[in-house]
Amino acid sequence: MANDSIKIIAFDADDTLWVNEPFYREAEQRLEAMLRPYENGETLMERLYARELENLKIFGYGTKGFALSMIETAIELTEGKISGKEIQKIIELGKGLLRRPIELLSGVHETVELLSKTYELMLITKGDLFDQESKIARSGLADFFEFIEIVSEKNPEVYQKTLNKYNIDPKNLVMIGNSLKSDVLPIVKIGGSAVHIPYHTTWVHEQVSEQEQDEHAYETLDSISELPQLLKRIAI
Amino acid sequence: MANDSIKIIAFDADDTLWVNEPFYREAEQRLEAMLRPYENGETLMERLYARELENLKIFGYGTKGFALSMIETAIELTEGKISGKEIQKIIELGKGLLRRPIELLSGVHETVELLSKTYELMLITKGDLFDQESKIARSGLADFFEFIEIVSEKNPEVYQKTLNKYNIDPKNLVMIGNSLKSDVLPIVKIGGSAVHIPYHTTWVHEQVSEQEQDEHAYETLDSISELPQLLKRIAI
Repeated sequence: MANDSIKIIAFDADDTLWVNEPFYREAEQRLEAMLRPYENGETLMERLYARELENLKIFGYGTKGFALSMIETAIELTEGKISGKEIQKIIELGKGLLRRPIELLSGVHETVELLSKTYELMLITKGDLFDQESKIARSGLADFFEFIEIVSEKNPEVYQKTLNKYNIDPKNLVMIGNSLKSDVLPIVKIGGSAVHIPYHTTWVHEQVSEQEQDEHAYETLDSISELPQLLKRIAI
Repeated sequence: MANDSIKIIAFDADDTLWVNEPFYREAEQRLEAMLRPYENGETLMERLYARELENLKIFGYGTKGFALSMIETAIELTEGKISGKEIQKIIELGKGLLRRPIELLSGVHETVELLSKTYELMLITKGDLFDQESKIARSGLADFFEFIEIVSEKNPEVYQKTLNKYNIDPKNLVMIGNSLKSDVLPIVKIGGSAVHIPYHTTWVHEQVSEQEQDEHAYETLDSISELPQLLKRIAI
């Protein structure tokens, strides 16, 4: 990280501010248990991931698309033998994900509140518009953020376009997130700074190879609570 | 409509710029045909609409939520007897809606192009983020719009917040749309002007009573092609 001109701190939301991915893994485990009686030797997880990737092109990211992909995979794996009642249970798994309470990660509330006194904060997240707005509202953090952006993809072009909208120079921004692919590398690419705070569970789609990681420079922290200290250190 | 200070023309998208609702009615008719062998005397449309309304609170607007509501309604109406293969067909109906080509309504391209030379244009639409972005990209109209906003709900608060984001005074804006409930009345309520261009097919959720209609003043046109003339007339 570079300079003393940081004015805006941008945060990813899912698995950076609050727990997300473990709920999806739990839903997948419940689906696996539901499909066990139909066992045909193939692994659910691989087929589900392949189906999700295929469907990303039509559905984009988000829980409703995930629910539809779970249903399609269950129909495929059981060769259409799964019952209507079981499919209703899969829909309930999806609704459970959409209704779940927000569990902020350790240190998040204090850190976001503290930083909001010195910096302008931006929240930038991808997924279903309605679901993400609902999570932000329920998180109790919305008032700390000057800018809230929900985008359909997180790549350098989308970040650049979003910053342009508010006349923000990437040099004045540091992005905080758990995903190298979606939060860290694209921001570094457009000339911003980034801090990676890894989370113990990462969707395989968000994982990047070591080669990709080495090409760019960014800071890594164990916890969001270390962020104010890091920002102080680089602002000399 | 009031004054000569109109600087920004905002457009709704679905059924204002391009065909949308008829594709949903078509999907419902296909679902009805699919469920005919299970007939149990209840009407699909009523049950589907009740299910959609219930699910709006969890799914928000958009095609993926519509697909999930079609599946749930089919399971309910057949008392769980619908097969996995038939449910796959319902998912394909949803995917068909997401993939359909964009059919611009008559006069739209010329009018939008013409007005973009005199005014700043905004597009403001609700639904699935990814789906709406894809439709805007495929419409060939994106370059005419200065502002593109996809929102989860269209009420006075959301319009006001969106205009605040760009420091736009509602007095300087006229909103064009086919829905009194979502496009016309909320804009009039926050002090903007609105033009209603009715479309032959309106989702029952977007319909408002005559009483609600009478409370506000707005212009009504038969076709978007009449819009430049109307704007010229009121700009005296």
